[in-house]
Amino acid sequence: GSSSRPKYRLTILPGDGIGPEISKVALDVLCCISSEEGIDFEVQEKLLGGAAIDALGTPLPDDTLEACKDSDAVLLAAIGGYQWDNNEPHLRPERGLLGLRAGMGVFANLRPAVVLPQLVDSSTLKREVAEGVDIMVVRELTGGIYFGQPKGFGKNSNGEQIGFNTEVYSVSEIDRIARVAFEIARKRRGQLCSVDKANVLEASQLWRQTMTIVAKDFPDVELTHMLVDNAAMQLIRNPKQFDTIVTNNIFGDILSDEASMLTGSIGMLPSACVKNSGPGLFEPIHGSAPDIAGQDKANPLAMILSVAMLLKYGLGEVKAAERIEKAVIQTLDNGFRTGDIMSAGKKLVGCTAIGQEVIRAIQANH
Amino acid sequence: GSSSRPKYRLTILPGDGIGPEISKVALDVLCCISSEEGIDFEVQEKLLGGAAIDALGTPLPDDTLEACKDSDAVLLAAIGGYQWDNNEPHLRPERGLLGLRAGMGVFANLRPAVVLPQLVDSSTLKREVAEGVDIMVVRELTGGIYFGQPKGFGKNSNGEQIGFNTEVYSVSEIDRIARVAFEIARKRRGQLCSVDKANVLEASQLWRQTMTIVAKDFPDVELTHMLVDNAAMQLIRNPKQFDTIVTNNIFGDILSDEASMLTGSIGMLPSACVKNSGPGLFEPIHGSAPDIAGQDKANPLAMILSVAMLLKYGLGEVKAAERIEKAVIQTLDNGFRTGDIMSAGKKLVGCTAIGQEVIRAIQANH
Ligand SMILES: CC(C)[C@H](C(=O)O)[C@@H](O)C(=O)O
Ligand SMILES: CC(C)[C@H](C(=O)O)[C@@H](O)C(=O)O
Repeated sequence: GSSSRPKYRLTILPGDGIGPEISKVALDVLCCISSEEGIDFEVQEKLLGGAAIDALGTPLPDDTLEACKDSDAVLLAAIGGYQWDNNEPHLRPERGLLGLRAGMGVFANLRPAVVLPQLVDSSTLKREVAEGVDIMVVRELTGGIYFGQPKGFGKNSNGEQIGFNTEVYSVSEIDRIARVAFEIARKRRGQLCSVDKANVLEASQLWRQTMTIVAKDFPDVELTHMLVDNAAMQLIRNPKQFDTIVTNNIFGDILSDEASMLTGSIGMLPSACVKNSGPGLFEPIHGSAPDIAGQDKANPLAMILSVAMLLKYGLGEVKAAERIEKAVIQTLDNGFRTGDIMSAGKKLVGCTAIGQEVIRAIQANH
Repeated sequence: GSSSRPKYRLTILPGDGIGPEISKVALDVLCCISSEEGIDFEVQEKLLGGAAIDALGTPLPDDTLEACKDSDAVLLAAIGGYQWDNNEPHLRPERGLLGLRAGMGVFANLRPAVVLPQLVDSSTLKREVAEGVDIMVVRELTGGIYFGQPKGFGKNSNGEQIGFNTEVYSVSEIDRIARVAFEIARKRRGQLCSVDKANVLEASQLWRQTMTIVAKDFPDVELTHMLVDNAAMQLIRNPKQFDTIVTNNIFGDILSDEASMLTGSIGMLPSACVKNSGPGLFEPIHGSAPDIAGQDKANPLAMILSVAMLLKYGLGEVKAAERIEKAVIQTLDNGFRTGDIMSAGKKLVGCTAIGQEVIRAIQANH
């Protein structure tokens, strides 16, 4: 009977720039997978970022946060745009995202950087260096210098103006992100590289110490430590040496973006923000690309792969997720490309058209 | 008469690992340029890092710091090694370096990342991306999270252990590094990119604001701002977009190492740590490479180019500096390579031998 069909309550946050157009494609894919796999979704759309500032005067309306916390999973497209860049800090789109992460408590940010064989030439790295790169960056997302107190502006002992922030981690914050990272490394190639700056920062010394303790519970995973400056170099020198990387909020911000750019196709990369139980937040790693918004030029594949991550990591619907992932690969194999990943001999299509190709590929493969 | 020959007092810090062998080559080059150019040097050697820990029980003996402060310029090779890695923090080689920077007050770290045409294939980047890269990273070196108070370990309101550090900048600290960076950009291609995380950090907001104010005094330089995560990506996507970058201590640590690895030949890159007046500290950006220490395999060219930077930025002896720089290029053009930059068809030589080739090239060109 119909009661055996799983039914999930999702919130979608189209946000700004290309957000609405890639969200539309994502919803079409979700609709397709729903009928193909017999899974029901009830989707509500909410405002976040610039769109919320314009409509409601705040980047994170209470109603949006409540809806997200009350969902089974949240899908976010992208936020931000030039028109809000000169707003006061609390009226900027990013504040909505930071507040949403903190409010949902999604402390673990999973950012895969995978070089697909079909797109290896998009990388600025030499083919032999880029080929086969498959890194998962696990970034701590609700602690560290992003949220540490005290912070703000003040005066120093000379009476001069200062700006300050606090990098701070507690043992339990490090312990829980460590466990997420070890679990992920265990399901991958069993290698976890923890990145810190323990030769300078006390916060990093506690990080390294706690990682080493948690490692005892995961004897099947090999833990190594690397300094952040060296990691920034090694990602370029030989990215294939990395399997899973775990690091703090600010280093994760920098290194995950560096790792994603190694692939040369950030329009292809999804991400997940999760916690131990409760809804996760899924989003492409790319931004809102205001330059090309509304022109049907955006690459919706990272957003579609974010739907797959939502199904896999957020809802445990692994089969549905894998059908979407295969369909994306199939679409590339069929030669379809958006502008950002175009190369000679391929078929240039727009946002909507490539979305339809993915849907066709889902339907063609059971 | 002899009173017209300039005479400089230098301190050399050979440090650890390959430090002593590349220092020896550097002294030979200094000796050569002394007789070629009629400049006198009085060089004293002091202990720093692991060597100082072993001999005197501290990574920065008072005598070393006093000698450095009392010199016209300081040349440092490299510090660190596995045998000190498990020491307590205050007995680690790096502490000596941090103490030396702070003690000398050298707040501006200049880190060039240049892809030489002779070595473009050493880069893991595609030739067309790497070719012509010429970036100067100006890193703030005596402030920010490296030195900010309070820092340490403690308990949070739940009684749980925490580790914490403070990222803090005052207006005058930002102002003085800004002026150094604008002056450098002015002598280069007139473009200064200030890197921060102003969308999240208050310390970065003060940074951005102060950079913008100082920019008014340098109307001939174009100032842009970039977020650190984006900078980490753009360095890989299109490094040629950058001329001069200015950033804080920790972002500079990460981005300058990333930029240097783009060149593929970090054995070639010198750096300078300077202040408005008083002695500067000059050192190769590479580490102490304990794996190859004592085997005459190290590449001394970064150390030799650090001597050139010392002459140019530290003593104003531009002609002597340029003779050394030209001789290094000539040595590469003559086909000599150490192992780290070796490629097919070139002549593999050791540390001492390539040093002698540079000396020969200095002597051959007036
Ligand atoms: C928009 C910004 C606040 C955000 C961050 O720094 O976390 C972004 O860069 C990201 O990585 O998702
Ligand atoms: C050794 C370490 C303390 C140092 C730093 O972080 O500044 C090094 O990485 C550097 O960049 O010179």
